[in-house]
Amino acid sequence: MPQPSSYVPDRPEPILVVTTGGTIDKVYFDASSEFAVGESVVGEVLRQAQVRRPFELLAVLRKDSLELSDADRTRICAAIEARPERRVLITHGTDTMTETASALARLGDRTIVLTGSLAPARFAQTDAVFNVGMAFAAAQVLSPGVYIAMNGEVFEAGRVRKDRQRNEFVHC
Amino acid sequence: MPQPSSYVPDRPEPILVVTTGGTIDKVYFDASSEFAVGESVVGEVLRQAQVRRPFELLAVLRKDSLELSDADRTRICAAIEARPERRVLITHGTDTMTETASALARLGDRTIVLTGSLAPARFAQTDAVFNVGMAFAAAQVLSPGVYIAMNGEVFEAGRVRKDRQRNEFVHC
Amino acid sequence: MPQPSSYVPDRPEPILVVTTGGTIDKVYFDASSEFAVGESVVGEVLRQAQVRRPFELLAVLRKDSLELSDADRTRICAAIEARPERRVLITHGTDTMTETASALARLGDRTIVLTGSLAPARFAQTDAVFNVGMAFAAAQVLSPGVYIAMNGEVFEAGRVRKDRQRNEFVHC
Amino acid sequence: MPQPSSYVPDRPEPILVVTTGGTIDKVYFDASSEFAVGESVVGEVLRQAQVRRPFELLAVLRKDSLELSDADRTRICAAIEARPERRVLITHGTDTMTETASALARLGDRTIVLTGSLAPARFAQTDAVFNVGMAFAAAQVLSPGVYIAMNGEVFEAGRVRKDRQRNEFVHC
Repeated sequence: MPQPSSYVPDRPEPILVVTTGGTIDKVYFDASSEFAVGESVVGEVLRQAQVRRPFELLAVLRKDSLELSDADRTRICAAIEARPERRVLITHGTDTMTETASALARLGDRTIVLTGSLAPARFAQTDAVFNVGMAFAAAQVLSPGVYIAMNGEVFEAGRVRKDRQRNEFVHC
Repeated sequence: MPQPSSYVPDRPEPILVVTTGGTIDKVYFDASSEFAVGESVVGEVLRQAQVRRPFELLAVLRKDSLELSDADRTRICAAIEARPERRVLITHGTDTMTETASALARLGDRTIVLTGSLAPARFAQTDAVFNVGMAFAAAQVLSPGVYIAMNGEVFEAGRVRKDRQRNEFVHC
Repeated sequence: MPQPSSYVPDRPEPILVVTTGGTIDKVYFDASSEFAVGESVVGEVLRQAQVRRPFELLAVLRKDSLELSDADRTRICAAIEARPERRVLITHGTDTMTETASALARLGDRTIVLTGSLAPARFAQTDAVFNVGMAFAAAQVLSPGVYIAMNGEVFEAGRVRKDRQRNEFVHC
Repeated sequence: MPQPSSYVPDRPEPILVVTTGGTIDKVYFDASSEFAVGESVVGEVLRQAQVRRPFELLAVLRKDSLELSDADRTRICAAIEARPERRVLITHGTDTMTETASALARLGDRTIVLTGSLAPARFAQTDAVFNVGMAFAAAQVLSPGVYIAMNGEVFEAGRVRKDRQRNEFVHC
């Protein structure tokens, strides 16, 4: 079960916010009639939410998660490993979020929360902002481990899967 | 420091979502040129976020928090005490959120997270959705106690105040 | 040059609002990772704009305009011809809007205004709502003929083209 | 009945966009719990709509229209009279829009379209953007005179009033 870290409220540790692509960052390019991952808007989400807790943005990839290779997952792990932050939020496509979560399990001693969204952040109606909020809070209070925040739930990675019929994340 | 409850992921406890008013639910009534607390949109925020975790909505008040009396705070406490849920999210005006948090301290054995927003949820640009996301996640994983989720931070109640000059919540 | 019809303000003629697809109505289907024309949101745009002028919605097609065939254009013309309304607003993909405008030229005695958008109406940032507003006003006051309302301009069809480099409509 | 101007499409005349306040530009100041007219967002509306037709923004006032005095109306007229543009869009509070329209009647030889909104432009759900679109198109194609564009209709000023019971603009 999820455990908090030794959290000292008055010296807030910066949260590392890693973006890798996914639906959350998809944008429509009218000129080419293309709907693809664009520049991440996660920083803008945090700005609009008037976040005062320090964070660092790190754009590692801009891929649909169905296109992530093992090499890509290795890159994501390496990017996090090279950083001092112990608390990490990763935005990621939902289709293979659980696979990347598995790859991250080996990075002990860090609280890592993955999230993404079923509707792009740039849409008027979206789950993106709520999900980033969930993950940003979860990353602050949970103890080391890997987690997924989707559909209003904070799951331990390894205990969740994306149910493709219902297009939602469920316990397993 | 915040501790999680004994959280069994595969039998998610319903979260009680109590709305009391505040800027988060302010709406503009053109006919009367009035900007006041309206019907809560928090349920709609949870719906749009595709939340699948069970929750119960309880509208207790519709007040600007500067107008809350001790009797109002007693009402809020009583409404929560009468319910079975051990995990509670309260949306509330930001101006006296810390006072209500104090009044709730006596309700042991519950994880209570207060949040609100500096811009109404009905605005195109708002911190409301992110904050409700933060609080919804925090309510799931924290151990019993009273907390405030604002400005991207999860605070222990009693260790936070609203800095009126900077119009933000800070540690104290 | 554009001429108004004989417009009697106190007996407003209903405006026929024909939807044919295009970027304006594109939606993201997460389950299939597909970004395609969905159910039209133009009726919702008019509702949100608190439009009191009578109008009739007619969904004829749901196609990206690059996929419209001559048979499709014939269908659009026939659908309009079969209706009593003399004032028509058509939402349409921008890529071949001028071609459909040409096909409509033969329908004399009607004021027809085509519009669409470069960003989907479902996006938080979009030209869709403004454009439908432009076209709805133009359809009311212009004399019979075919027009295009895009990029803040009301053009006579036949005197406008979409400049693909600049991704905007310009006089020609 | 509305008549178009002698409109030569290939040399688009700049449209003068005058902002005077009103609900359309209301903003919430959390620090003071005040909901009041702020900096105009009309320029941002035009930018987001990818308007390529030249326009000039002129912020004359920032008042709720119930607070406009005769001196204020004189200022609005004078500001327009001092400008070369023959086509004018004015954003204005809805409560006394018809009164300002009357005051503008003496400015012959200009096409002036007033609009505003019942919900602020900064709201997620608003009529503001649609209305500015309506007025921007109407200003381009109508012949000299004063008009009001609200609730999906282009009215001749003098033939319209705001029905306060129904909170909408109707013919009279």
